[in-house]
Amino acid sequence: MSYRLNFRPDEINRIFVVSKTNWMITNKDVKFIKSLQLKKYRNRENAFVVEGEKNLLELLKSNLEISQLYLTENFQAKHEYILKMSLSSFESTNEKELVKAGSYQTNQAGIAVVVIPKLPPVNLQHGLFLAFDNVQDPGNLGTIIRIADWYGFKEIICSKDSVDAYNPKTISATMGSFTRINVHYENIGSLISQAKIPVYGAVLDGASIHETPFKEHGIFLFGNESQGISDPLQASINYKIKIPGYGQAESLNVAIATAVVCDNVRRILR
Amino acid sequence: MSYRLNFRPDEINRIFVVSKTNWMITNKDVKFIKSLQLKKYRNRENAFVVEGEKNLLELLKSNLEISQLYLTENFQAKHEYILKMSLSSFESTNEKELVKAGSYQTNQAGIAVVVIPKLPPVNLQHGLFLAFDNVQDPGNLGTIIRIADWYGFKEIICSKDSVDAYNPKTISATMGSFTRINVHYENIGSLISQAKIPVYGAVLDGASIHETPFKEHGIFLFGNESQGISDPLQASINYKIKIPGYGQAESLNVAIATAVVCDNVRRILR
Repeated sequence: MSYRLNFRPDEINRIFVVSKTNWMITNKDVKFIKSLQLKKYRNRENAFVVEGEKNLLELLKSNLEISQLYLTENFQAKHEYILKMSLSSFESTNEKELVKAGSYQTNQAGIAVVVIPKLPPVNLQHGLFLAFDNVQDPGNLGTIIRIADWYGFKEIICSKDSVDAYNPKTISATMGSFTRINVHYENIGSLISQAKIPVYGAVLDGASIHETPFKEHGIFLFGNESQGISDPLQASINYKIKIPGYGQAESLNVAIATAVVCDNVRRILR
Repeated sequence: MSYRLNFRPDEINRIFVVSKTNWMITNKDVKFIKSLQLKKYRNRENAFVVEGEKNLLELLKSNLEISQLYLTENFQAKHEYILKMSLSSFESTNEKELVKAGSYQTNQAGIAVVVIPKLPPVNLQHGLFLAFDNVQDPGNLGTIIRIADWYGFKEIICSKDSVDAYNPKTISATMGSFTRINVHYENIGSLISQAKIPVYGAVLDGASIHETPFKEHGIFLFGNESQGISDPLQASINYKIKIPGYGQAESLNVAIATAVVCDNVRRILR
């Protein structure tokens, strides 16, 4: 990719001084960033990694706290305005360094280490919520976060045995929506038992979502990729719903099912 | 995984003779099967590879022509009835061999080499069709094939620069639906220009699918993961449609968009 450097004089100082003083990610930082691919180290350090152009742009526009930021000169030139607005300090790097430190096979943008935010406790008294019992695939969860952001569902509740929302593959699949959606890890059963709003469970023997009169508030519960909703949680469901099929496939992927249910809910609850 | 062999006497002969005479996939066949991960060799050999339990079960129930079939004793014991019904001859193997020959990191089921079927020409005079302009991700295409099978869309048309439907990652993501859905590679522009049915194009500035009065027949056109529908094809669209958003995500993944559009179409055209 080629680009033209075209800074105004007052911007030159900031970008070039940094890029001269620190051209590469130190070995210590490479090791640190790599360690954050594992949940154990993310929890210990209270930090996660963001990679790729779209995710970094959304990060820079968000209020999340960045503790380390490495950007290619390409990214700096292309997005100088957003960088200036975000007031983040950063260091220059190149693609080779980024691939060494990160989880992507190619990365022409950059890497950030971000502080895991403290979420306010989830309040199930009113509103729309997505809940997932033991979702396992990190790409599925990332896609679900992006879907929640499209359909305006701000809060996702995952069972404690679900995949981590700060997994690099999850963050990658969110396409920046990780900056806007809260993912809570909770004992879904006990949380739901205190809720005052209906629980809709996506199952294979429910009523068609095309004919469900969704109420003003609700929790929409989805199960594991192969086992569905676990038996103890089945009892918490107030309304069993299903996506009607017209062909011969036995099931839909959990992210696909989430999108279709959200679309049917939003048809009624705008 | 443990299992108990519990065959009736008339079945013992078939399964055990085969498993004794040929315990492993020959090096020549490993090389051949591996080569089919590349489109170039799939085209030359007119064959593709099927892996994993669900995909193999659907394959055995289908009319597709199997040229090589390797199954673990676990799979044979678990699915003896389906194997008997399908009349396929097979050889026994183990997980180590399967991982060596195939594309999966774990495989407790088996591998098949399957003849690429000749598809009847696609006829756009009536019916429901999904069309994709330059879809690139093999997992997306596989998920789309599974969605088509759920919603009863039998025919998918891909532009010639789209990812191959027989890519191992595509087959894997179909969860067996590759046995029921026809994927045609065509010059979409010239094909559509001869169609007598409306073309609905998924774009960001279309009319809401929640309010679109879908007609009896139609072609539903989706674009590339990042670029959308290419300019020359934009001119073929009769009705621009969009999935209404209620949050801040900029777009939806193409497989997600396909599912939501199919669901909205099937609400009206059952």
